Amino acid sequence: MSSCPLPFDGPSVIVLGHGSGGRLSQRLLEQIILPGFRNEWLDALHDGAILPPVQGQLAFSADGYVVRPLFFPGGDIGQLAVHGTVNDLAMCGARPLYLSVGFILEEGLPVETLVRVVSSMKEAAERAGVRIVCGDTKVVERGKGDQMFIHTSGVGVVREQVKIDARRVVPGDKVLLSGPIAAHGIAILCVRDGLEFVPPIQSDTAPLNGLVDALLDAVPDVRVMRDPTRGGVVSALTEIAVRAGVEICVWEESIPVDGAVAGACELLGLDPLHVANEGKFLAIVAAEDVERGLTALWAHPLGREATVVGEVTGEHRGLLTLRTRMGGRRMLDLLAGEQLPRIC
Amino acid sequence: MSSCPLPFDGPSVIVLGHGSGGRLSQRLLEQIILPGFRNEWLDALHDGAILPPVQGQLAFSADGYVVRPLFFPGGDIGQLAVHGTVNDLAMCGARPLYLSVGFILEEGLPVETLVRVVSSMKEAAERAGVRIVCGDTKVVERGKGDQMFIHTSGVGVVREQVKIDARRVVPGDKVLLSGPIAAHGIAILCVRDGLEFVPPIQSDTAPLNGLVDALLDAVPDVRVMRDPTRGGVVSALTEIAVRAGVEICVWEESIPVDGAVAGACELLGLDPLHVANEGKFLAIVAAEDVERGLTALWAHPLGREATVVGEVTGEHRGLLTLRTRMGGRRMLDLLAGEQLPRIC
Repeated sequence: MSSCPLPFDGPSVIVLGHGSGGRLSQRLLEQIILPGFRNEWLDALHDGAILPPVQGQLAFSADGYVVRPLFFPGGDIGQLAVHGTVNDLAMCGARPLYLSVGFILEEGLPVETLVRVVSSMKEAAERAGVRIVCGDTKVVERGKGDQMFIHTSGVGVVREQVKIDARRVVPGDKVLLSGPIAAHGIAILCVRDGLEFVPPIQSDTAPLNGLVDALLDAVPDVRVMRDPTRGGVVSALTEIAVRAGVEICVWEESIPVDGAVAGACELLGLDPLHVANEGKFLAIVAAEDVERGLTALWAHPLGREATVVGEVTGEHRGLLTLRTRMGGRRMLDLLAGEQLPRIC
Repeated sequence: MSSCPLPFDGPSVIVLGHGSGGRLSQRLLEQIILPGFRNEWLDALHDGAILPPVQGQLAFSADGYVVRPLFFPGGDIGQLAVHGTVNDLAMCGARPLYLSVGFILEEGLPVETLVRVVSSMKEAAERAGVRIVCGDTKVVERGKGDQMFIHTSGVGVVREQVKIDARRVVPGDKVLLSGPIAAHGIAILCVRDGLEFVPPIQSDTAPLNGLVDALLDAVPDVRVMRDPTRGGVVSALTEIAVRAGVEICVWEESIPVDGAVAGACELLGLDPLHVANEGKFLAIVAAEDVERGLTALWAHPLGREATVVGEVTGEHRGLLTLRTRMGGRRMLDLLAGEQLPRIC
């Protein structure tokens, strides 16, 4: 646990005044938030950051984080908020450059909790090689929020010669998956339901930009990538199938799921294909690029268990199907309602 | 009030499933949110938007909106969220181009309320000439939020030859204000406190990019601009004074405040200089640029009441002072705590 970067000469819990734009806001910013993220653009403390020109197409992404609990095995809301937006930019074929961070704090939140989250975001941003350059803090009354919500957005530059577009997916393409699925959702659920595994199941939250770079260096022609967060692999691949007007078939026996995660899924009655991930991605590539792609993924610490999990066929437009271990085939559909609220 | 853009074949209130990433999320997105914001980038429905290259320095800004009530005389949370980020980019000397929108919805929110807000954001974005290109929706349980929070971030391109930097402010410079202050904060407070004026006091929420363009066309050398939102004119000018290491002195008799707003401030015991605005800005310019600047502002519908409200002196570093109507002089300081919670 990190300690407060500076002695904080204010109340030990968040009060409404921290969101006022007055003295308390200023102190929170100067003593807690800025020391965490310090860089020349954020320090300018303007209404927005003025950044150097960027050569190439821009990628722009945004996501909110309402995960509960704030801290969980393998990560916390701050890491998730940095990794999530870094990963969304990486999925555009972009190098993430700059992030914004918005906090919505509930009155009564211990300042120490905010300090821990800021410190965690700082480390995550450094690991991913991005700068946090602008942001905002709001405070709502006790009972009108839930400790802390975070919103991040990010800007990146799309790599040259890379053209990520689901409409480029064609029958014959293969589906790569960067590693075992369902760890994040199950880690959160185990904490919430008091299910104890030894060792505890850890969230897979991680920045994917390095791994994506490795893949794109080897295979610039990747058709499309997607990180299967909320809604899991099924939501991510269904969106691609619909957008591309193809059928995607995944092979049950090829989907990697770690033993403890698979056991927890059984116990909880969940299909790992619907469970959220925060450090995995799917890439659709031409069949001739599979070997080169896998070799590149395997060489990176986050891609050692990468594998081919399915293929694109032209048979049924906009459908995702599963080829079962028994050789049968069934449709995989989006979940109708909520399986795991506030997973990210 | 806008009607639903498409018949919505889902529940009439927001449920947790709308944040699941499954079927209900998809329906909310396709039937409520996308029809409001439709454009080629958003329609790509990727994890992020892939945008054309931008020539010049980037401006990047982000803000959260937790205003209560959601709808108030002169505006609503949706307009505020669009205008706020547009204005922050304009304050960087940038032309706003793209916005992201993140919703955090409380379970039980009427879908019709979301439809009204989306429709209002669509109109505000069109008026300001920006595209909403990416976003996200999360749902939290009843009692863990407050109807709706919005987070927007934005990307713009800094105008050539414009160099907005508080450190360029020097003694002798003058402070321009684009119009009468304190309307937004007072409009919100009147609604909350049940104070009825006839006609009701309206928020001044407006996109400032057109007005800022008019000023910068005439005076590219503007030193710094700031829109006095939370914390009002005092917070905005104090930040500039500290950053620039100068004293800024504002002239009490020159600060424009509309009659009804001034009356309400009296009644509520508020100093209009501390009250939030959402459609006004301060610009510091060289003395020789004042006339040209004012002429440009007066020619724009949002700047007709622009005026000079103070000057920069070198006497006391980092201070904001007020020259009173009686000829006295006193320090203006940031408020210690919270005056008006959840004003934006």
